[in-house]
Amino acid sequence: MPKKMLSLPLGSLPEAAPKSRQDRRREDTRRRLMKAAYELLARRGFEGVFIQEITERADVGYGSFYNHFLSKEGIASAVIDAARLHIEQIHECLGGLSADFTEAFAIELRVMLHLCKTNERWGWFVINSILSGQDLRFGVRDILKRGVDSGISNGAFKYGDVEMAYEIIGGLLLLGTLKLVSEETPEDYPARIVSTALEALRVPGHKIKDVMSKPLPEIDLPSFLEAAA
Amino acid sequence: MPKKMLSLPLGSLPEAAPKSRQDRRREDTRRRLMKAAYELLARRGFEGVFIQEITERADVGYGSFYNHFLSKEGIASAVIDAARLHIEQIHECLGGLSADFTEAFAIELRVMLHLCKTNERWGWFVINSILSGQDLRFGVRDILKRGVDSGISNGAFKYGDVEMAYEIIGGLLLLGTLKLVSEETPEDYPARIVSTALEALRVPGHKIKDVMSKPLPEIDLPSFLEAAA
Repeated sequence: MPKKMLSLPLGSLPEAAPKSRQDRRREDTRRRLMKAAYELLARRGFEGVFIQEITERADVGYGSFYNHFLSKEGIASAVIDAARLHIEQIHECLGGLSADFTEAFAIELRVMLHLCKTNERWGWFVINSILSGQDLRFGVRDILKRGVDSGISNGAFKYGDVEMAYEIIGGLLLLGTLKLVSEETPEDYPARIVSTALEALRVPGHKIKDVMSKPLPEIDLPSFLEAAA
Repeated sequence: MPKKMLSLPLGSLPEAAPKSRQDRRREDTRRRLMKAAYELLARRGFEGVFIQEITERADVGYGSFYNHFLSKEGIASAVIDAARLHIEQIHECLGGLSADFTEAFAIELRVMLHLCKTNERWGWFVINSILSGQDLRFGVRDILKRGVDSGISNGAFKYGDVEMAYEIIGGLLLLGTLKLVSEETPEDYPARIVSTALEALRVPGHKIKDVMSKPLPEIDLPSFLEAAA
């Protein structure tokens, strides 16, 4: 296990005022619905989930669903938004960890793969969200693009065709995540994926070796629903 | 449209003897069930499909399903097998098209992407099959691995880490297919994906330009179910 270096303050939003019993109950129901939807979306993807399954899994009456969400699309959007927020928070927290651009970029890719490796449900949720073409695809892509663009501007990366640089890195991460959640992979597989991505971006070998030797911060993946409820 | 150069003789298996009316009817039912399963698997993936939906879509009685398949897994396997056979037939037919190894490899990748671009249902079916971890994933991977391995052995490709070469090419194809079926992509997007794959394999730029200028054979994508029924 890597040494614990960082625990993100995700989901610990300050509470403004004590809540009424009714408010707490309402929040609890909403949280249970979102958790159930998240689990079903992770397992089945977006086409195969029905509202009744969500309410049954959440142990909430079918009619109560509509006190919280307008439709299946509505709850899926809420879950996706929460996930996107979560990924952006990780991105922002990690960005401050290293003054070296390549090192910070590498740590982010390593953490993303590590989270999917240690939490299969999260990994499947990410894959199914990206497949469904929901906002998460574009959220993840934006973060990735900003990273690649910055690296090319500041000279850390030398790849000439920036559009194709996205495709290489995005493809490596998508396939890598899929293998991590669905196959036996060697212990060093995530590190090799990230090294290959850096190599594709023309980062020199000695620099890759250097940034990959840095300890990985341990990220607690909280139930993102806590932050979202 | 590229000039029609090749039409694969897929699905035209010789018939041994005239079939009885009962046999023809049985085959027709089986074919309808497989077609319905194929369409649902393409749209929903493997977790979200139920036998009753298959029989309803195929307009076949629920009980008749079990005259042909033991389970949902059984029909999914039959459909996947048919698809795998289909991909292998394309692979074999294309292999003979060019004496130049890199050109033949490039044509195969180009044809695979072109089929997914022109036939979204097929593209989604391939993606969902690969995601589900069914045999198709390993079938496609085997073909790809054999290609990359041969290229490295015969010196056409120079990439040192063969395992990571698979990941780069596989990732580019997976992400490329996903974008082709779910986003607006530029006309030259498939060609750029293949050029990027060849570049990642250290094929020289002039050679990439040369092989990418070759006309693409037109492949009729028959309903693979004809071959499978």
